[in-house]
Amino acid sequence: MSHVDERTRALQAPSSAVIVASTSNPVDDLRRERAKASFNARELEALLHGGADMVHLRRRIADVMTSQDVFSKRGKYFLERDELYKSTLAKYLALPKAVTSMKEKDPIQVARIMREFIDEPGGLDLHLGMFIPTIQGQGDEEQRKYWIPKCVKLECIGTYAQTELGHGTYLRGLETTATYDESSEEFIIHSPTLTSTKWWPGGLGKTSTHAVVMARLFTKGKDHGVHPFIVQIRENKNHEPLPGCTIGDIGNKMGYNAVDNGFLRFDHVRVPRRAMLMGHSKVEADGTYIPAPVAKVSYGTMVFIRSDIVMNAALFMKKAVTIAIRYNLVRRQSNVHPNSGKECQVIDYQHSQRTLFPILAKAFAFHCTSDFMRRMYFEFQKKSRKDQDFSALPELHATSSGLKAYCSWETKDAIEACRLTCGGHGYMALAGFGTTFASYAPNVTYEGDNNVLCLQTARYLLKAYRKMSSGGESLPSALSYLHGSDSQSQLGQGASLRDENAIVDAYAHRAWRLVTDAARNAGNMSPDDTMREHMVSWIKAAKAHCAFVIMNTFVQEYSDVHQYVKAETIAVLHRLVILHGLCGMDDTMGEFLEDGYIDANQAAGIREEIFRLLAEIRPDAAALVDSFGLHDYFLNSALGAKDGDVYRRLYEQVQAAPFNQSHQPPGYAELLKPKLSKGTFGVSKL
Amino acid sequence: MSHVDERTRALQAPSSAVIVASTSNPVDDLRRERAKASFNARELEALLHGGADMVHLRRRIADVMTSQDVFSKRGKYFLERDELYKSTLAKYLALPKAVTSMKEKDPIQVARIMREFIDEPGGLDLHLGMFIPTIQGQGDEEQRKYWIPKCVKLECIGTYAQTELGHGTYLRGLETTATYDESSEEFIIHSPTLTSTKWWPGGLGKTSTHAVVMARLFTKGKDHGVHPFIVQIRENKNHEPLPGCTIGDIGNKMGYNAVDNGFLRFDHVRVPRRAMLMGHSKVEADGTYIPAPVAKVSYGTMVFIRSDIVMNAALFMKKAVTIAIRYNLVRRQSNVHPNSGKECQVIDYQHSQRTLFPILAKAFAFHCTSDFMRRMYFEFQKKSRKDQDFSALPELHATSSGLKAYCSWETKDAIEACRLTCGGHGYMALAGFGTTFASYAPNVTYEGDNNVLCLQTARYLLKAYRKMSSGGESLPSALSYLHGSDSQSQLGQGASLRDENAIVDAYAHRAWRLVTDAARNAGNMSPDDTMREHMVSWIKAAKAHCAFVIMNTFVQEYSDVHQYVKAETIAVLHRLVILHGLCGMDDTMGEFLEDGYIDANQAAGIREEIFRLLAEIRPDAAALVDSFGLHDYFLNSALGAKDGDVYRRLYEQVQAAPFNQSHQPPGYAELLKPKLSKGTFGVSKL
Repeated sequence: MSHVDERTRALQAPSSAVIVASTSNPVDDLRRERAKASFNARELEALLHGGADMVHLRRRIADVMTSQDVFSKRGKYFLERDELYKSTLAKYLALPKAVTSMKEKDPIQVARIMREFIDEPGGLDLHLGMFIPTIQGQGDEEQRKYWIPKCVKLECIGTYAQTELGHGTYLRGLETTATYDESSEEFIIHSPTLTSTKWWPGGLGKTSTHAVVMARLFTKGKDHGVHPFIVQIRENKNHEPLPGCTIGDIGNKMGYNAVDNGFLRFDHVRVPRRAMLMGHSKVEADGTYIPAPVAKVSYGTMVFIRSDIVMNAALFMKKAVTIAIRYNLVRRQSNVHPNSGKECQVIDYQHSQRTLFPILAKAFAFHCTSDFMRRMYFEFQKKSRKDQDFSALPELHATSSGLKAYCSWETKDAIEACRLTCGGHGYMALAGFGTTFASYAPNVTYEGDNNVLCLQTARYLLKAYRKMSSGGESLPSALSYLHGSDSQSQLGQGASLRDENAIVDAYAHRAWRLVTDAARNAGNMSPDDTMREHMVSWIKAAKAHCAFVIMNTFVQEYSDVHQYVKAETIAVLHRLVILHGLCGMDDTMGEFLEDGYIDANQAAGIREEIFRLLAEIRPDAAALVDSFGLHDYFLNSALGAKDGDVYRRLYEQVQAAPFNQSHQPPGYAELLKPKLSKGTFGVSKL
Repeated sequence: MSHVDERTRALQAPSSAVIVASTSNPVDDLRRERAKASFNARELEALLHGGADMVHLRRRIADVMTSQDVFSKRGKYFLERDELYKSTLAKYLALPKAVTSMKEKDPIQVARIMREFIDEPGGLDLHLGMFIPTIQGQGDEEQRKYWIPKCVKLECIGTYAQTELGHGTYLRGLETTATYDESSEEFIIHSPTLTSTKWWPGGLGKTSTHAVVMARLFTKGKDHGVHPFIVQIRENKNHEPLPGCTIGDIGNKMGYNAVDNGFLRFDHVRVPRRAMLMGHSKVEADGTYIPAPVAKVSYGTMVFIRSDIVMNAALFMKKAVTIAIRYNLVRRQSNVHPNSGKECQVIDYQHSQRTLFPILAKAFAFHCTSDFMRRMYFEFQKKSRKDQDFSALPELHATSSGLKAYCSWETKDAIEACRLTCGGHGYMALAGFGTTFASYAPNVTYEGDNNVLCLQTARYLLKAYRKMSSGGESLPSALSYLHGSDSQSQLGQGASLRDENAIVDAYAHRAWRLVTDAARNAGNMSPDDTMREHMVSWIKAAKAHCAFVIMNTFVQEYSDVHQYVKAETIAVLHRLVILHGLCGMDDTMGEFLEDGYIDANQAAGIREEIFRLLAEIRPDAAALVDSFGLHDYFLNSALGAKDGDVYRRLYEQVQAAPFNQSHQPPGYAELLKPKLSKGTFGVSKL
């Protein structure tokens, strides 16, 4: 029975009426926003996904996953670590059956999309992503035949134990040793120092029974450098560590807590000679070391993983900006507008647009970069496999290194920038930004520290510059800008501020200037020396090169799609291309002003043009993020769901928080009750 | 008994010897770094703390806290949320006794330092920081006398319920109503919409029995705007919600999870007339509304809280850079150096220095800003209380708003930048960056969204500009730059690149240009209109003003300390002043180049000078962070502890991770064992 009488209700009613009059319904707001669009979001969605079939497949996959409890993300943001670990593992284990149930002709593709939708790395990630591929790539045939079937049946779960407490980036410094004992034909795997403790491998802490251990190989007293060894570390029957193995979890991290990153120490652990993966180098029974016939054959895997990070960058940029734009479209916060009688939508603040729309444009740009990277990788793979043609490797390596760094930096920062446009609610776990940021952050560090990767691109740029200067071979097309540039931009002068080619020229000019300056500074120094002495300049030059590649690719892909989509879609894409180009310049304008390539009038003109573009893009904002086609299941955000029903969702979802199981907080009886229960209120008129 | 025989040990020994030869001891490394310093860190520490006595007091406080189990932070990074909540609450409840035990003459200061050292906001934060101060500031005498003693004895615990699901920044839009019922002399507190649900108040979710509820007051059918009401929300005897109150926790956030931020809905809840805090406005028994005699009297509290955020920014900047610099000093990662036989310290990478040393310098700059802000606030407080002189309020308000925004943005970004210099290990919870970032992040949003605050500063700048242009009153000294500036910087021309006054001139010039440009653009627009139309330009202008205030203050405080410290300390501080100034220019060089104030040669000269400064600061890096005097208990970082014993600490501390209680992971029996136990290994030679 209600505690409220009719008289009270009647007294309250007029006040409520005043309040309700100025409120608005976010669901209606978002519906109205969609109706404003100047183009067809479904057409663009199909274009981005490579066809309507793929859009359809992704929807079907989402339907299958949302219909099964094991894949549910309900309450996920409130899970303590053991539950998060367990439920993520359960999702991965449920994948094979779910994939099979789809009856698609390309089950690997379905599995990939399902893992994308789960959007949470788990204890099996390194088994699938590193352990199996390493055996395939570095084992010999007998080893592959022995191990792969066991891996597939999960009779063993492996990890890749490379990084140590003391060494990550500099691999030659790894301290774990594998010393060959000829008499027993075994290796002794040992951790001679504290810093040699294996540290970080995913799935090592709790999940794995086996590991590929990267260790310094010693035979006949000689150090042959780092090689891979398969070592069993836990019992199959009960998961207890094997004698000589000290294993554990390295505890919570900023994110990634469904993964049991672990540590591992060896105390003189003996493994058979054939535990060494012998697809390339070998140790014979008598201890003779036979080096690999071709060095760096496994380069390809590294390049592939970096390319994969570039592709992922686009996805996470899209995710963050979808959530932020949808919420900014329904969030109202301002003086009541005299015309509408409502408060303003937050997206109508110039600052929100200046933050979010360039990120939106960048998501499209990175989408194209991702396509470009994928094509480049697969072309190389084809050539290298068929014709043993590795000539594209240096460019592929330099490009994937730099773009991995550039795209992961930009994406990490964009996720945080998107969150900040969502005010306080962006900070709630249910918004999704916190875990997206924390899970994305390692992309900047792993698979090559970003600064180190920029220097690898820089080495390539230096080499190309030196070859060109000495009149050597012709430059790859991506580097043709090194031949020189106009001294003054045509933007807003001979060319319109919306001339995409003039913008590409500007990016080329900056890259040319920064590479040329750094290379001239280097004089005759060795690459090692100038990379150390002029590190900051080289990183800047490498970034400028990457920004050029991305802009150039964006313009090329934009030009290529004219035949596939309607004119109004082309017009929208053109605005995004220009916005991306001009904002990238505005944000680092000093680099264009310094040598007079852009003058003060042009700089001011670019700023003005940006504001015009923001206003033009504004009505299409809702439809543009719709075109990314990110399913609510993937987004898992109370702020970013497709229907815009933000407040109802927040209110409903917080009810599941574990703190709401009881009205009394943890520690109530001992900490709070003794004091609070002395309080008496209610009798006083106060 | 060991599983290792003597023969195996003998075989391993030579390999171990090779490895050990190139390792180094981080503790020795850090000791050697300290010995290099060109100045006395203790002298600088005393200067920063306002005397050796304060340094001594802080050490004693740390000693007291580390000697009591209740204050222990051991295993804190691995706590699940309920344990974190409970242990934090226990720390706060243990404070009074710990403060008393110190027998200091200023117990409030001791308590403040202890809360700083605990470094974790908890369920009582809003009771102490908002509930009590609001009653003191907004209650009348009878209300204060009734409530404050109960608050002090914790017979009630209160929170401050202002923000709602639908409204944060725009307070006049709050939707909770308080409708006066003359017949019963009560208010009906009600939540008429979903969006009127109170959302976010700290301590509301589980801890509080009472709340100051900010609600729209309706008397006699008229809306009088937002006023404060004290409402009991939970029973004292058993903590159950009172009838008509729906209360809960809003679940996990990115950080701040020791705080139970909550939600609260009212269903026609009746409270007595005197539940309204009546220190300013009143409602009489017959429903007559009597407005406050002076509007905005409570402005001071808001200014104080913003000033406090400025002060805290310096502290968290110091924390992050202390951890990062110490770890960068002991982490070695590179080819073995031919001379030393060791790998390089990571800090010797130019990029690390270019990232960390400007943050180090900025921590000193913010320290001075914090001093300046504190003095400005206390002078205003004295004048306003003694002489009812509120004339300094506009400047104080504009300065505290802008500096709150500027310093919190910079600090948040600096914490993340510091983490990124620490590679993978920076991502571990034990490093401390994750929680520091996540707990610091709300500073950017709460107590005024940073962009909104910048616009408040911008309004002040616009007003000053317009007054000056119309030949009005003289400008406050901080704004004298608005009178104009040279058109060309003297830096590296008439003045040395290390001339701090020429650098201040450059900051003044930029602020002058950006304010002047924005004001000219505004023409005759109303402040509201230009702030909306030119929002991005005004935010930029406000930031430039803040950067000038910070640089100017840094130089002034630097000049003032000459009499207190030795020449070598002055020399070190001078390098930091110049580094801060030049890096701030280099990072936004476009803003100086655009109007030709700085030319290309000067820009290049500044870059070169920065590298020279980095090299000069390098030997003092360890001593400079020591001078901040941050105790290991406060830092709580395995990477940043004073002794440099990083790897031992990491290895020891991860053993306490809850995942390491068992060798089998969560879900082992049902998920993994059925598959894994089928595996058989060990018989094969593989």
